[in-house]
Amino acid sequence: MSTGSIQELDQEECRELLKVGRFARIAFDTGDQLELLPVNYAYDDGIILIRTSETSGLSTIVDRRFVLEADHHDDTYQTGWSVVVRGSAARATQAQLEEFGTRLPNSWVSADGSPVHIAITVDDVRGRRVRQFPS
Amino acid sequence: MSTGSIQELDQEECRELLKVGRFARIAFDTGDQLELLPVNYAYDDGIILIRTSETSGLSTIVDRRFVLEADHHDDTYQTGWSVVVRGSAARATQAQLEEFGTRLPNSWVSADGSPVHIAITVDDVRGRRVRQFPS
Repeated sequence: MSTGSIQELDQEECRELLKVGRFARIAFDTGDQLELLPVNYAYDDGIILIRTSETSGLSTIVDRRFVLEADHHDDTYQTGWSVVVRGSAARATQAQLEEFGTRLPNSWVSADGSPVHIAITVDDVRGRRVRQFPS
Repeated sequence: MSTGSIQELDQEECRELLKVGRFARIAFDTGDQLELLPVNYAYDDGIILIRTSETSGLSTIVDRRFVLEADHHDDTYQTGWSVVVRGSAARATQAQLEEFGTRLPNSWVSADGSPVHIAITVDDVRGRRVRQFPS
């Protein structure tokens, strides 16, 4: 019998967690179907930066409906958090890339063509945390 | 400089990984927007079982477009896998619940109303693995 409870997080907590996380999933609507892909990201001051390539579906989110979710879960303690982000996506500007500097998200695979950086301006965040209490 | 490469997984590998995983994310289209939620799951023989509640948006995927993704990532070694699942969702039958038995997905939070089990019949799986090679 689980004794956990869900706690809604406020805006500030959500943004603090986005800063800590490095890994997220993005769902987007291709028109034909929904796609759901993992992605490395970096967050700072209302902007999420992701790195992808021209050949990846992720580069198309600038023209599509999408949602991003970052989370962390501890299977042993059955605790975790999840933050859902909505916003608008565009090619990152040179100024944004310079502002992120060394905090730019890295890629785990060798470049397949030129890297493409997408900047998501965060309009709305919503988050939840699961905590366990002694039974 | 990353030296990783992406390898596509075949159907059998994808289904083996689905068996190993316990945690996934489901994206679905509410009509107004895309939703993206984490979920515990169990997989066996072409069926993914998730446990949710009447009050959760997840219970609505039986009537909506959705996609499920399970993954595992090792941040230190920059390796991981991701499997994307498409299929049809319906309330789980009593026979399905009995077949899963003790392998039913557990919930991390105390029951919020009656639990609802959804069975996803897997129509299509697609997966990728990221591996690193010495540079």
